Amino acid sequence: MTFPTETNFSDRHIGPRPGDAEHMLKVLGYPSLDKLVDVAVPASIRIAEGLDLPDALSESEALAELRRIAARNTTAVQMIGQGYYDTVTPPVIRRNVLESPAWYTAYTPYQPEISQGRLEALLNFQTMVQDLTALPIANASLLDEASAVAEAVLLMRRSGRNKGGRTVLDADCLPQTIAVVKGRAEALGFEIEVADLSNGLPEGDVNGIVLQQPGTSGALRDHADLIAKAHDAGALVTVAADLLALTLITPPGEQGADIAVGSAQRFGVPLFFGGPHAAYMAVRKGLERMLPGRLVGVSKDADGAPAYRLALQTREQHIRREKATSNICTAQALLAIVASMYGVYHGPDGLKAIAEGVHSRAARLAAALPGTVHGQFFDTLLVKAEGKAQELVSAAEKRGINLRLADSDHVGISCDETTTDAHLETIAEVFGVELPGGGEATIPAELQRTSSYMTHPVFALHRSETQMLRYLRALSDRDLALDRTMIPLGSCTMKLNATVEMEPISWPEFATIHPFAPEHQTEGWRHLIDDLENRLAEITGYAKVSIQPNAGSQGELAGLLAIRNYHLSRGDEARTVCLIPSSAHGTNAASAVLAGMKVVVVKTAQNGNIDHDDLQAKIEANRETLSAIMITYPSTHGVFEEDVRWVCDQVHSAGGQVYIDGANLNALVGLAKPGEFGGDVSHLNLHKTFCIPHGGGGPGVGPVAVAEHLVPFLPGDANGVQRDDHDGVSGVPISASRFGSAGVLPISWAYVALMGSEGLTAATKSALLAANYVAARLNEHFPVLYSGENGLVAHECILDLRALTARTGVTAEDVAKRLIDYGFHAPTLSFPVAGTLMVEPTESEDLAELDRFIDAMIAIRGEIDRVGSGEWQLEESPLRQAPHTAQMLISDDWSSAYPRELAAFPLRTLRHDKYFAPVRRIDGAHGDRNLVCSCPPIEEFED
Amino acid sequence: MTFPTETNFSDRHIGPRPGDAEHMLKVLGYPSLDKLVDVAVPASIRIAEGLDLPDALSESEALAELRRIAARNTTAVQMIGQGYYDTVTPPVIRRNVLESPAWYTAYTPYQPEISQGRLEALLNFQTMVQDLTALPIANASLLDEASAVAEAVLLMRRSGRNKGGRTVLDADCLPQTIAVVKGRAEALGFEIEVADLSNGLPEGDVNGIVLQQPGTSGALRDHADLIAKAHDAGALVTVAADLLALTLITPPGEQGADIAVGSAQRFGVPLFFGGPHAAYMAVRKGLERMLPGRLVGVSKDADGAPAYRLALQTREQHIRREKATSNICTAQALLAIVASMYGVYHGPDGLKAIAEGVHSRAARLAAALPGTVHGQFFDTLLVKAEGKAQELVSAAEKRGINLRLADSDHVGISCDETTTDAHLETIAEVFGVELPGGGEATIPAELQRTSSYMTHPVFALHRSETQMLRYLRALSDRDLALDRTMIPLGSCTMKLNATVEMEPISWPEFATIHPFAPEHQTEGWRHLIDDLENRLAEITGYAKVSIQPNAGSQGELAGLLAIRNYHLSRGDEARTVCLIPSSAHGTNAASAVLAGMKVVVVKTAQNGNIDHDDLQAKIEANRETLSAIMITYPSTHGVFEEDVRWVCDQVHSAGGQVYIDGANLNALVGLAKPGEFGGDVSHLNLHKTFCIPHGGGGPGVGPVAVAEHLVPFLPGDANGVQRDDHDGVSGVPISASRFGSAGVLPISWAYVALMGSEGLTAATKSALLAANYVAARLNEHFPVLYSGENGLVAHECILDLRALTARTGVTAEDVAKRLIDYGFHAPTLSFPVAGTLMVEPTESEDLAELDRFIDAMIAIRGEIDRVGSGEWQLEESPLRQAPHTAQMLISDDWSSAYPRELAAFPLRTLRHDKYFAPVRRIDGAHGDRNLVCSCPPIEEFED
Repeated sequence: MTFPTETNFSDRHIGPRPGDAEHMLKVLGYPSLDKLVDVAVPASIRIAEGLDLPDALSESEALAELRRIAARNTTAVQMIGQGYYDTVTPPVIRRNVLESPAWYTAYTPYQPEISQGRLEALLNFQTMVQDLTALPIANASLLDEASAVAEAVLLMRRSGRNKGGRTVLDADCLPQTIAVVKGRAEALGFEIEVADLSNGLPEGDVNGIVLQQPGTSGALRDHADLIAKAHDAGALVTVAADLLALTLITPPGEQGADIAVGSAQRFGVPLFFGGPHAAYMAVRKGLERMLPGRLVGVSKDADGAPAYRLALQTREQHIRREKATSNICTAQALLAIVASMYGVYHGPDGLKAIAEGVHSRAARLAAALPGTVHGQFFDTLLVKAEGKAQELVSAAEKRGINLRLADSDHVGISCDETTTDAHLETIAEVFGVELPGGGEATIPAELQRTSSYMTHPVFALHRSETQMLRYLRALSDRDLALDRTMIPLGSCTMKLNATVEMEPISWPEFATIHPFAPEHQTEGWRHLIDDLENRLAEITGYAKVSIQPNAGSQGELAGLLAIRNYHLSRGDEARTVCLIPSSAHGTNAASAVLAGMKVVVVKTAQNGNIDHDDLQAKIEANRETLSAIMITYPSTHGVFEEDVRWVCDQVHSAGGQVYIDGANLNALVGLAKPGEFGGDVSHLNLHKTFCIPHGGGGPGVGPVAVAEHLVPFLPGDANGVQRDDHDGVSGVPISASRFGSAGVLPISWAYVALMGSEGLTAATKSALLAANYVAARLNEHFPVLYSGENGLVAHECILDLRALTARTGVTAEDVAKRLIDYGFHAPTLSFPVAGTLMVEPTESEDLAELDRFIDAMIAIRGEIDRVGSGEWQLEESPLRQAPHTAQMLISDDWSSAYPRELAAFPLRTLRHDKYFAPVRRIDGAHGDRNLVCSCPPIEEFED
Repeated sequence: MTFPTETNFSDRHIGPRPGDAEHMLKVLGYPSLDKLVDVAVPASIRIAEGLDLPDALSESEALAELRRIAARNTTAVQMIGQGYYDTVTPPVIRRNVLESPAWYTAYTPYQPEISQGRLEALLNFQTMVQDLTALPIANASLLDEASAVAEAVLLMRRSGRNKGGRTVLDADCLPQTIAVVKGRAEALGFEIEVADLSNGLPEGDVNGIVLQQPGTSGALRDHADLIAKAHDAGALVTVAADLLALTLITPPGEQGADIAVGSAQRFGVPLFFGGPHAAYMAVRKGLERMLPGRLVGVSKDADGAPAYRLALQTREQHIRREKATSNICTAQALLAIVASMYGVYHGPDGLKAIAEGVHSRAARLAAALPGTVHGQFFDTLLVKAEGKAQELVSAAEKRGINLRLADSDHVGISCDETTTDAHLETIAEVFGVELPGGGEATIPAELQRTSSYMTHPVFALHRSETQMLRYLRALSDRDLALDRTMIPLGSCTMKLNATVEMEPISWPEFATIHPFAPEHQTEGWRHLIDDLENRLAEITGYAKVSIQPNAGSQGELAGLLAIRNYHLSRGDEARTVCLIPSSAHGTNAASAVLAGMKVVVVKTAQNGNIDHDDLQAKIEANRETLSAIMITYPSTHGVFEEDVRWVCDQVHSAGGQVYIDGANLNALVGLAKPGEFGGDVSHLNLHKTFCIPHGGGGPGVGPVAVAEHLVPFLPGDANGVQRDDHDGVSGVPISASRFGSAGVLPISWAYVALMGSEGLTAATKSALLAANYVAARLNEHFPVLYSGENGLVAHECILDLRALTARTGVTAEDVAKRLIDYGFHAPTLSFPVAGTLMVEPTESEDLAELDRFIDAMIAIRGEIDRVGSGEWQLEESPLRQAPHTAQMLISDDWSSAYPRELAAFPLRTLRHDKYFAPVRRIDGAHGDRNLVCSCPPIEEFED
């Protein structure tokens, strides 16, 4: 008689109860789940045995193990700087954003009507960045500062006058930035020069320059002249600027910069061992339509009320594919929101006081230390100590303070919001000097900021903790996230983000570690990361995994660069063609272009699979130049293609490599391994299959997994440090930080540890069951577009509305918006096939929730029929009028052709706990025509 | 040039910004805050200097200090048992209840329309307890198991046939229970006998008996015969039963018990060093109207829909005052909700599996250990080890396991949900025995439970983490808590519960400590508690504070018992009269009765103050028997009475003691000290002035503070352990655990540490400012009933609606309910004066929120005038119809005399982020007439 100490976690992660699964199988006509899976998944790719993973842990065991791992990290006073600064996350923001399911389980705000809260938060971020940089348009965050600079360089190359010219990075730029930008440039075949621009602009054609303010060395420089000269020479100028410094110094926009980029990390986002952090980019007028990344804009809803939504989406990779200028699809939304709320909480005066405090402490230290190299600085001092730098850094470390070993003769010291007088005293002792009572502020008069910033009321209204708490609650209440409803988004795998997985990320032993802390201080982190990489390699069947890419798009780029560099290493310089099926996600094509490849599209056959004839023809036509094929498996059509091994063989036999996009890995884990059925590379999406929450549009993590021959080409360290445990890896660095978004990796580690082989496999099977159940139940109402030869779908299904639309005019978008009235987030709209909805229920939804969704869809089908029969005019139907706000429903003048109750409560179950959209349907085109990307005056919200 | 490292916490705690305060003072006509305070607070009681407290810490510093303190506690495997068992709090419940502001900042559900979520959660608790005990009515929790038994004893004495008889406690009852019950009995002058009832009922008149199942020794006994015999002898029977054991054994109700009590701690509530935990009480039919504590019942709203609210309130202390049978006013709502959700998450099958696991591990251990005393047990073994008990306990402790030293010859070992095979092996090694593979289950067939339980669908519907998360979100969304609106409840001080104060309570180093762990394992806890007691003594001006009382009512009782025992120690046996002003909170009177005192009421003068003549007359009439006076200061009328020193002197000179109720301490901190202006005893409410959140109706903490001569009479330790650091304290134990609700004390510790003397004083001044601002702004619309001679109120004000009611019929209740439509929680209704509303804004609300409330009240006054003018019939007015649900407002048949928009959006600002009450006004009387206190069938919620 033995009993488990705790219930299995997998029973909590997986939604359907045993009885539920039985019922679902009955509907599908299968005697058992295994039988269904055997039919659904091609035998040719099935693995013979379970995954070789440790036994599943209980929730308590996993937490205990994570505590042991965390204890192997050493917390210290982090004064290394170099792009990462300690900061105080206000606890009210930590608990009510970073640790709040309402915020972290939200999806990207593609459905703006149910995303007004997070859109407002992101608009605050944009407004704050615009004000601090003095540039009129900022985006809603990029992945990290280094890749933001890379994006800026590409933007300058597109927009500058000297198209063929070099791009010059100042030598005082962050070393990791220089490394990342060089890697990108190499793939695209243009030249990056690193020069000391304080000596003036170099000779020859220069397309653009990048300056760092303050520099890595801490030097604060007046860039106005240099910028003017660069403009005269036809070059554009990017300034990578510290947001906190900008509260005190003349902002890049006022110095004439075209672009400003940087990190918002020190605005309340923990160090997280290097990430995730939100980078920002702001541009001058005229460049806004070239800006990469997400951009929140203000538009109007159907009642003319102001409403937010993502602007200018037509320029994004999912629309423009290989013509896109960036492959970025996600942002660091959750971290940008933290940073924006930090700004809201402190306001301009608070931020300025923090900056003054930081500067005063640096100045006090400068007054003490004789070897300070630069007389003008903000927070960072470079101190000359000939031959003694290592000794001083070690002495400080013994006292609990990490400094930066700039080189053998120089020590870097960065002050931040958390620096105390006691820290300064310790440093003075280490350097053997006396600390004076204070120091002179060193910002020269001509560089002192005179303009105001953050004058919008939002930066003044929520300054007590009580009001901040309510603001955060009010915003999140406007949105629909996983904590209120299933989010049946095909290709996005919106599964449970379990609390036990989330809790450890805010533990200080994980959250407060600097990415460049000495290795012996980060044993816990490196153990966890190695462990996760190894387990992911086992799950995917590859030789090695790198978790460095901090988004799926970056994983794609890393994987394609590995392929590129593999070919180059063999002298196969001509191999630059990348085959991509027409059904692929647009990011694939954009990434291929960024990897220096030429995209050739392969057609889709009638049944949705890759067209064999076209594939063979395209291979033949590019036999000598074939670099790779990028396929998604199961396909973006939600089908297990039986021929996947054949496709891989065809490409291999032509000398190409096979890239299998892991976006749909949730259909495979424990059943098949892409590394075994033909893939040379895959990227995974830890924010899909491995439970990192979407955070309202980031962070994502996109590890790249490769076969043995590609291991040497995995991403290297942008900071140039060789690490024993990553020997043999020297590819192009993809992120500023060696371990990318390390901070959220405990989530995926915990998921794998909690589920074990059996749990992971059961989850996959349950995901297949749920998708097939939904497909079977809905097929008669909305035909399922594609299925396998066996009549089954994989883990998602495409509902085809095109015939209904042709007959009734009701569009897939109408259904998506009407679902809001039913309390649901819409499925994926018009991807991969226009006019359809793609539904992915995941394994985490139980039967009750699946049925609630099915009931809603069937009810909506009934509404469509009432339009079809002529009973309702389309324009006057609840479908086209959806979503309905409470204001509209309670209006004294109700003139709709249908009754209020039908609009609000089409199903009886909706009468309790009803969600009301805060705005009606949003006019996106209006917003794009009249681009406004900062907080509107509050008067606009009055009636 | 020096700057703080962080903004002051007090600036975040205090709502009004500096500019706000200026504006408010201008409205009041005072040049400065100090001037206002000088006028408002009598000079005669002001303290000359600031509080002698350490400098205020920043939030980071406070967290760092708390981490240092926590590190001084030693976590261990807790197998001591004796009423406290380790348990796994499901992380989804920890994060989304214990750590969720929506749950923990909620007030007691006296306004049921905005409390449906927590009322449902508490109803689940009642249903679970009823099912597990097999008794038809359970309350919504009591303060701890020991006091629950004390309440059961009192209930048996009220209801039993043998009114004069003894009450007999079985010797195997928990020692802390026996100690607490004896203390209560002594004060009330009845006899408690402790006897081994396994030998049968003692001779003579017995009023009631109490049995423990399983006993402290772990023995499981079949009580059926004994209960029958007790009934035959005219005695009632209480069984203190372990809820988890009841999933496997015949429940008390089926064995004939009249009452069951116990702790729900092991249902997911952390050990918390002894509390807070929810105790339960369930009774057989016929006793429900005698049941103490909160009781949730089902009733109907104005539309006939099922709706929850507190039932049978007329029996509670705030109504019945000295005629009340219990002084309990609060519950352990938050902890009861955690326990109920643990039940919801595991369901009956899950709970049973946990119980079987616990039992199987105990059985395995029993099979190994030769000296097991009892052959029938559930989770706890008493092991005989002659002369070696201490040695064995020490050896286990060295291996990280805490066992119970029952006596020098016996060791107690309690298994729980967290016990693993490894723990059993360690224990076997300590005892030097082999561990067999398993052990026989020992529950005899006749004691095995056969009846089903928890069959309501709520215990089956939310079993995946995703659905549990959504259930918790949906319930909390139905409620209004501080995270959405100010809660201007007079006498309740609903101020900010800052995140930084809340975070530490779930750290394992605080949360997982057993109350009876060895002292050297609990250094951190004892340091924190000493520190807090000392700081509270400094703040209140008393010699010593005990934080043992786990609610304000218990603090009152502790304080009154100290007075009683002081008089007795001097031979003053006749001093039993307690003077209580008529304006006092009803609990005062109820507590006095429980302390064995006779209540004599002192009249209120016209101006709301104590009537001097009547006071003198009452003192004169009771000069020889005067024990004490209980006054509240500032008075419950929200006024600083100038004469408080005179009142105290009068009582003292008659030989009486002065009890100053600290309920309104928020008006005094840093300005005046009750221990200095005349008090001998006060109790404080840490859940008011010191930021412990109300948790939807508990936990509360009610420390008792005393002058030097009363120190020896502070509560002693119910577990009988003498502690060096509490020498000289040997009064009546008031709680089962020496340190009461230790688990939430880090909240108050942090508040005091973060605020320091200046911050605390500034908070008090701001609270006075806010109350006077509201009073001044609203006075012309709703006259302020009482103010001081200076025209000022203290920290709250009473708005008198009686004249308006007389003229228009609109009642204070109508206003309270209409405020819901305006998005507000109502002020205190009809206390201390019927027909009024008492408003206490606290210092944490900023000007915007105060004005939002004032605007709402002024708008409501306009609505009252429309009734007064005859424009609206009262019954058909939005005031009487309030609150309005979304269902009603969106109904296709709107027949009200006023438009929908006026009902829903009477102010334009309400159009955004509107809160809709989930039910309409609730018919309380209907529910009391048709008492239903368990979850109704879900069909009742269909239309």
